[in-house]
Amino acid sequence: MISAIIASTSTVHGSGYLEYLLDTLKLHFKGIDKIIFVPYARPGGISHDDYTANAAKAFKKLNIEVIGLHTCENPAEAITKAKGIFTGGGNTFVLVNQLYKNKVLEPLKIAINNGTSYLGTSAGSNICGLTMNTTNDMPIVYPPSFKTLGIVPFNINPHYLDPIKGSTHMGETRETRIKEFHKFNTQPVIGLREGSWIEAKDNKLFLRGNLDARIFTYDATAYEIKTNTDLEFLK
Amino acid sequence: MISAIIASTSTVHGSGYLEYLLDTLKLHFKGIDKIIFVPYARPGGISHDDYTANAAKAFKKLNIEVIGLHTCENPAEAITKAKGIFTGGGNTFVLVNQLYKNKVLEPLKIAINNGTSYLGTSAGSNICGLTMNTTNDMPIVYPPSFKTLGIVPFNINPHYLDPIKGSTHMGETRETRIKEFHKFNTQPVIGLREGSWIEAKDNKLFLRGNLDARIFTYDATAYEIKTNTDLEFLK
Repeated sequence: MISAIIASTSTVHGSGYLEYLLDTLKLHFKGIDKIIFVPYARPGGISHDDYTANAAKAFKKLNIEVIGLHTCENPAEAITKAKGIFTGGGNTFVLVNQLYKNKVLEPLKIAINNGTSYLGTSAGSNICGLTMNTTNDMPIVYPPSFKTLGIVPFNINPHYLDPIKGSTHMGETRETRIKEFHKFNTQPVIGLREGSWIEAKDNKLFLRGNLDARIFTYDATAYEIKTNTDLEFLK
Repeated sequence: MISAIIASTSTVHGSGYLEYLLDTLKLHFKGIDKIIFVPYARPGGISHDDYTANAAKAFKKLNIEVIGLHTCENPAEAITKAKGIFTGGGNTFVLVNQLYKNKVLEPLKIAINNGTSYLGTSAGSNICGLTMNTTNDMPIVYPPSFKTLGIVPFNINPHYLDPIKGSTHMGETRETRIKEFHKFNTQPVIGLREGSWIEAKDNKLFLRGNLDARIFTYDATAYEIKTNTDLEFLK
């Protein structure tokens, strides 16, 4: 049975790394004293070591030890044997590229589907969707495929951003971009605002956090759903 | 000898489609009565026909007829025989995917290098760089490669956006994204603000328009260059 927290962001404005999620994570990783951290997304190009140290600092508050996947001799085996896994945010292209190169994507999918407690933030959540086609990131590397884990039966747009009123910039709004996505793809997309997450547990999917989320479906107008909504209808 | 206008955007705020560029285009396409329009980038998922009609409307002011490349039986041949070519903006992934699928990328590169007058806006400019790795677009389709035309010996970031002061959103700024690009790639990047363009003519490259541009190089601090700067130093 899947047990996953799929969060829009690691950090909400004015709060420390993972701070807004700590109470949730305490329950989520209950009884687990060590997790594997997937540092591949390298936000700002930070090294795997430094990124893992950041994650370790946050998880120390929960008395959970963090092992960087890059330090494991056999990454696929490390994923398979892990009791808990956390994939941090950063660049989704870099993350997915590295998951494919290190042959970790399939073991990760199997582990999560077998019930290994999972936490994803930002890029680490994006990969829980069917594909990474709705990432906001810059395509700084070329991954072998855009296909991702499919832990949820739709796509995720983390850091969902409402249109900025009065903007004179001619770039597309996030909503316009996701509408374009639906000219070429049919799966639904959930726009997760910062501070929102999807809780996958006991064969159920719920929207959690304080905010509403925005749902985009193929050939229909986007609409809002309230927090704590059962996402069954997106299956 | 290359003759190209590589513009950040088709439309500046408060002005019509291509309006701010019309005087420049009048000179650029002087003596040419018909151009090929590449509508592949499909902004907002608009159809090839509708997009071509938009371009035709703008070029009517210059008494230039516009032929949509999608209406040509042999697109590669149409590109090769064209006197002028305009690639419109939209989604760079969709554009590059279609250029590869229709085997038009190489003929387009040859035509521009042979002196066919070229106009690119936004995605149509992005492809003039070495790769499309610095696009701002959402990766809604998976192209066979991110390699593009290399008309200029660097990468382009169109619609370059300065950081928004006081923003509480935790997403990356454009500058942060381009810095991340340089953790994995070494070619320089020019951040072209809306209303700026690169003029490639007589073996020279100049920044044109009213605004300064921002230059990002591998392992160095980003800096501003004035309009009308000779871009020779980026070669």
